[in-house]
Amino acid sequence: MPPREKLFPTTKVSAVNMDALAASAKEASKHAYCPYSKFRVGAAVYARKPNPEPPGTDAEAIFSGCNTENANYTLTLHAEHSAIAKAVELGYTDILAVVIYTPTETATAPCGSCRQVINEFGPRAVVVATCDAEGFSPRWNMSKLLPDAFGPHNLGKG
Amino acid sequence: MPPREKLFPTTKVSAVNMDALAASAKEASKHAYCPYSKFRVGAAVYARKPNPEPPGTDAEAIFSGCNTENANYTLTLHAEHSAIAKAVELGYTDILAVVIYTPTETATAPCGSCRQVINEFGPRAVVVATCDAEGFSPRWNMSKLLPDAFGPHNLGKG
Amino acid sequence: MPPREKLFPTTKVSAVNMDALAASAKEASKHAYCPYSKFRVGAAVYARKPNPEPPGTDAEAIFSGCNTENANYTLTLHAEHSAIAKAVELGYTDILAVVIYTPTETATAPCGSCRQVINEFGPRAVVVATCDAEGFSPRWNMSKLLPDAFGPHNLGKG
Amino acid sequence: MPPREKLFPTTKVSAVNMDALAASAKEASKHAYCPYSKFRVGAAVYARKPNPEPPGTDAEAIFSGCNTENANYTLTLHAEHSAIAKAVELGYTDILAVVIYTPTETATAPCGSCRQVINEFGPRAVVVATCDAEGFSPRWNMSKLLPDAFGPHNLGKG
Repeated sequence: MPPREKLFPTTKVSAVNMDALAASAKEASKHAYCPYSKFRVGAAVYARKPNPEPPGTDAEAIFSGCNTENANYTLTLHAEHSAIAKAVELGYTDILAVVIYTPTETATAPCGSCRQVINEFGPRAVVVATCDAEGFSPRWNMSKLLPDAFGPHNLGKG
Repeated sequence: MPPREKLFPTTKVSAVNMDALAASAKEASKHAYCPYSKFRVGAAVYARKPNPEPPGTDAEAIFSGCNTENANYTLTLHAEHSAIAKAVELGYTDILAVVIYTPTETATAPCGSCRQVINEFGPRAVVVATCDAEGFSPRWNMSKLLPDAFGPHNLGKG
Repeated sequence: MPPREKLFPTTKVSAVNMDALAASAKEASKHAYCPYSKFRVGAAVYARKPNPEPPGTDAEAIFSGCNTENANYTLTLHAEHSAIAKAVELGYTDILAVVIYTPTETATAPCGSCRQVINEFGPRAVVVATCDAEGFSPRWNMSKLLPDAFGPHNLGKG
Repeated sequence: MPPREKLFPTTKVSAVNMDALAASAKEASKHAYCPYSKFRVGAAVYARKPNPEPPGTDAEAIFSGCNTENANYTLTLHAEHSAIAKAVELGYTDILAVVIYTPTETATAPCGSCRQVINEFGPRAVVVATCDAEGFSPRWNMSKLLPDAFGPHNLGKG
């Protein structure tokens, strides 16, 4: 397993981009499909393309997502997962930062499944939870959210 | 349960759009993240916005997706699911057609989970499976793929 | 892919066993953990051990399960899935019949995900849906519930 | 939200029971169905019935599980999840300890999804990872494995 430090240098996301991520997450939440839980969530990720083509072109971008539920519950897709899938589809496979938004008075930490999804593409990502209350937005490193993570290396990959 | 016929009139997707869907599904498959299964999949959906704003603006669009796997396997996201999530996020909640592409010699039908996801937003959708072999592409109505479907009405919704 | 007919001869489950399956499914539903959906489900499967040891010993048994939900919704485990996992753990990997019970006035068909799970171990299984109303219990063959199923053969297995 | 301390007093599992859990997890792994990942896992949980009937009867028991995969990957069921579902079905809804076994040279921590499943029934559980190497078995409290967990309280339950 290659040292993750080589693949994922410490994430640096500017304050400007953090504001853009928060706005994008909030916007995405508007179309959340949550008739069962009534729990509306939006998310945005800041992602990097490892090999931009042609070289020198823009290599970082923001992708958003909302939760999309299903009557069988198990096929509920979380906002973070949806945003990451969009990034991967376009080749932005390094997730540097994840911002979650819920229209609540307190911020919501990502569930264990989303932590696992983030770990696959951003084991050194920063995760921030925002809500409708002013003030402090909790912020975590992935090493705190999912310590001793199960990941590609457990299957001899990555 | 309201009659589905009211909500979902028989899907009509032009041959032109079917070609565009097939091309979109194939393009999406290029960035499939499938280090575990090595089974690359792309998908595209033709979706409609129930209430376009402002009224009269374009109400139909194509969304694509690829499979995105995870070391824990359970968090694998399928191409069809990813494409539908993108449509829903932008308010295109009626799925009219789904096209699947696999770079194989025979076409691949959607799994039961994807049929369940399609049913939530497109119980009358047409599903087409394409691959690298020329000729016949299997085509199904959802009523054939998932008869007597479990859906929102089982939970008193929809 | 070996012919499924060899592996899965037409399921024959006696009426006596069908009654036992229905009773087992109903009993299992009592402890369903469904604080989110309030939708209580029980299931029972009739399963066979391909290679009983010592040879000649009993090779068929009934396993039950209930739905177990999770606050994140996606980790909801369905009754059918739980019952099948119990059978597999003890080596009973051929699923011959599945009976579902819901404490409702109308019977509930299995969702697409459960059809996919059943297909892995019982592509020729019989599925029956029971409820609290007297009379007809819908019954399907898997070939009707999940036609053109995606399965192990798509990945070169089975 | 009631204080978790009331519901889940600090887990105390005897060394004798820990040995029994480890043996049970290893036994369960024998029938793991893992043709896709080839990654065999067994698990056992020590669980308590909140309201044993009749009062005074045995209130604690061990339940085991193995991983059960599916060709569609997403319906893979993990060993921990399967064991917990068995406990819940019989009314043992308080998970006090989880032991994982993998036939590998290094121990395997639970994935994020399993941490989320454990959190629903055992937010104060102890988790131990065992393998075929002698010596140290990693041990965590859930508060370390899934800090700031998303759980029932986020949906106004629990």
